[in-house]
Amino acid sequence: MSDNAVVPLRVALLGCGVVGSSVARLLTQNADDLAARIGRPIRIEGVAVRRLGRDRSDTLLPDEAFTTDAEELVTRADIVVEVIGGIEPARSLILRAMEHGASVVTANKALLAEDGPALYEAAARYGVDLYFEAAVAGAIPLLRPLRESLAGDDVSRIIGIVNGTTNYVLDKMDATGAGFAEAVAQAQALGYAEADPTADVEGFDAAAKAAILASLAFHTRVSSRDVYREGITEVSAADVVAAAEMDCVVKLLAICERVVDGQGTQGVSVRVHPAMVPRNHPLAGVREAFNAVFVEASAAGQLMFYGPGAGGDPTASAVLGDVVAVARHRVGGGLGPKESAYADLAVLPMGSAATRYYINLEVADLPGVLAQIASVFATHGVSIQQVRQEACPPHDLDETDRELPGSAAQLVVVTHTAADAALSATVDELSELDIVRGVTSVMRVEGD
Amino acid sequence: MSDNAVVPLRVALLGCGVVGSSVARLLTQNADDLAARIGRPIRIEGVAVRRLGRDRSDTLLPDEAFTTDAEELVTRADIVVEVIGGIEPARSLILRAMEHGASVVTANKALLAEDGPALYEAAARYGVDLYFEAAVAGAIPLLRPLRESLAGDDVSRIIGIVNGTTNYVLDKMDATGAGFAEAVAQAQALGYAEADPTADVEGFDAAAKAAILASLAFHTRVSSRDVYREGITEVSAADVVAAAEMDCVVKLLAICERVVDGQGTQGVSVRVHPAMVPRNHPLAGVREAFNAVFVEASAAGQLMFYGPGAGGDPTASAVLGDVVAVARHRVGGGLGPKESAYADLAVLPMGSAATRYYINLEVADLPGVLAQIASVFATHGVSIQQVRQEACPPHDLDETDRELPGSAAQLVVVTHTAADAALSATVDELSELDIVRGVTSVMRVEGD
Repeated sequence: MSDNAVVPLRVALLGCGVVGSSVARLLTQNADDLAARIGRPIRIEGVAVRRLGRDRSDTLLPDEAFTTDAEELVTRADIVVEVIGGIEPARSLILRAMEHGASVVTANKALLAEDGPALYEAAARYGVDLYFEAAVAGAIPLLRPLRESLAGDDVSRIIGIVNGTTNYVLDKMDATGAGFAEAVAQAQALGYAEADPTADVEGFDAAAKAAILASLAFHTRVSSRDVYREGITEVSAADVVAAAEMDCVVKLLAICERVVDGQGTQGVSVRVHPAMVPRNHPLAGVREAFNAVFVEASAAGQLMFYGPGAGGDPTASAVLGDVVAVARHRVGGGLGPKESAYADLAVLPMGSAATRYYINLEVADLPGVLAQIASVFATHGVSIQQVRQEACPPHDLDETDRELPGSAAQLVVVTHTAADAALSATVDELSELDIVRGVTSVMRVEGD
Repeated sequence: MSDNAVVPLRVALLGCGVVGSSVARLLTQNADDLAARIGRPIRIEGVAVRRLGRDRSDTLLPDEAFTTDAEELVTRADIVVEVIGGIEPARSLILRAMEHGASVVTANKALLAEDGPALYEAAARYGVDLYFEAAVAGAIPLLRPLRESLAGDDVSRIIGIVNGTTNYVLDKMDATGAGFAEAVAQAQALGYAEADPTADVEGFDAAAKAAILASLAFHTRVSSRDVYREGITEVSAADVVAAAEMDCVVKLLAICERVVDGQGTQGVSVRVHPAMVPRNHPLAGVREAFNAVFVEASAAGQLMFYGPGAGGDPTASAVLGDVVAVARHRVGGGLGPKESAYADLAVLPMGSAATRYYINLEVADLPGVLAQIASVFATHGVSIQQVRQEACPPHDLDETDRELPGSAAQLVVVTHTAADAALSATVDELSELDIVRGVTSVMRVEGD
């Protein structure tokens, strides 16, 4: 017993990038506190890296702590922290670590969203823990509240900003009037966006996080393949201006909802897309690379979580919280929550989602146009919340337009909530009308 | 094994008020989901009440579920949920329940803040769980994030609104210009304040919550007796107007900080008092009976938690999350985090706290007055951030004033951060000056 108290728990760290080096440094700096909180000291058994020889003095670790042999390292650890990211070799290393009896803490949203159930199954088979708070929303405690605090409640909806890069880009576009490419370049220069920003700006990162959130909230397996995904690459400076005219801002949202479709099927809708959000909504006030997530539950009501969604130290804070949790289990027995997928709800297609649309049309400025447009909405059972018609300023018309008979008008329509499929069909039919010269912009509206 | 899976876990409920009846109803309504999430069904063994015979059909329980013999009930439960509140008989019943092997879930902030260590010790002695998420900030997952998610980080500060009643009262005073008594009467009429509002308006409730938060955040025993406490009974309509003139609102804040006092002693400051908060600060936007808490940690940065801080169902949501946690331990082994008080920091007196002051003085309108006032601040090492002088409107002066030589002026001073003791001494000395006719209002300023 007294011997046990001084045998340190061995932590193997896989990956030593921005997050990994913060984890290594904090494990060293906070060693005494961590030992007191866990009831036993922690020792870094080793850090697996792709190449040796780089200056890693920021980790506060000696050179001999580093190895390129991750497969060997994971066999001699009590706790494996995986911050490599991506599918392979992360998955194989995690499974191998569990097979050798290690509990795993990972920040790997892509892997969890693609193959979470396999990881859960391995953890159950080998009687080890799987924790992953850092995979979603960085330092913000969000997964533990969903897995544990709300475990007696019934979550109906999650809506939030879970990708800091795209929020930074959209915030700059809103604040400075910059176009998408310009704002991305600025984000890259400041380290908020990667050299290849695809995973962020195309919404892959947010979609993986949405899948993880939906899985936990609805006790249902949701993979990233189930998530409807639209990135922000098509969001133009004009869209941002149009949003501002509506007293809205454009945000990339992750939305997970319980829904009932037209046939009465209970299911969940999980989606990531840009949307206009009213400027007085708390999500509209989320600036720069911060994250914020609303969770609505039947008994709890509406909860909000806000904080830094990325970065080395914030993400490391979440990793270390998980390390303490699994280490406490090593010392005191027990395991954290297992996979909970008993509800097994259907993931409904995007068409079933209940959304609102903002539609900006260029129409012929003729009598009867509004009636014709409105009847298209009515045909599809879509109710109009507001409509605004303005004459197009001449410089908005190109030469082709000028040759068409009659002058043009700008028509802005905002709908009430309807099935996304009905809204999409409405827009398709509108664009076929002779009186419609073009659909300038279509965007979902959320957050009322 | 298969037998075990169908033997229900027995839950005893102590108390059947607003929270208790929500807990009973939700345990019944969500029985299937809870069983799936726990891995074993839950059964309500009984509900202890003070008097039988009342209509409790909202609990969905049969009459025979109720008993007045709480002492007997707790001996035949796996999990005891205590929502009686107050010190006794809650404490004796909790200790008795633990002695008989039951894990305890409680929402009892007063008891935890007065005698938490005794409860933790009993839980450790009998190998049972002690969970109390519902004790602070109702449905908002706040204690689990502090106890677990941030267990690898170093919390430096917590600042928040943790009492819904006083926030409702102050919000009404701000929105309608009502005085304190009027706003309290309104809150009582709407069920936001109790018939005897003392615990809320005098800050006792918030102080107990602050003690619990500080204990968890700083790994140090902090009892409600250690908390500096000022309620809102002295906040006048004039104070609220003065705050508005500063573009601030008055909020009752709970603040827990790591501080270093003048002698270099590391310690914590834990306090509850009304303060002016800039209107653009997120805490200023917390309306009605909602709660919001900021947590600052060294690696995580600044996190915010927001949601319903009270009410039957929201509080029951937190209770049920804890019930699932301790039930999972019953099924799968292990125990939740124990008391962590190893840091054992000193709780420093209010004088050591770093605060800012807003001071409104009525002074003689004579040359040299400002210089004299400013030198008092300088003597105490308090730096002035801004000062504004206005002639008093004649109707502000009573007959006594009129007989003094010279006309009066209103002087508003806002200080930079200084030790509370220095600020307090400054105000004392100012009120002794001949040129000061009166100190109209003094309030701390927070949230920059």
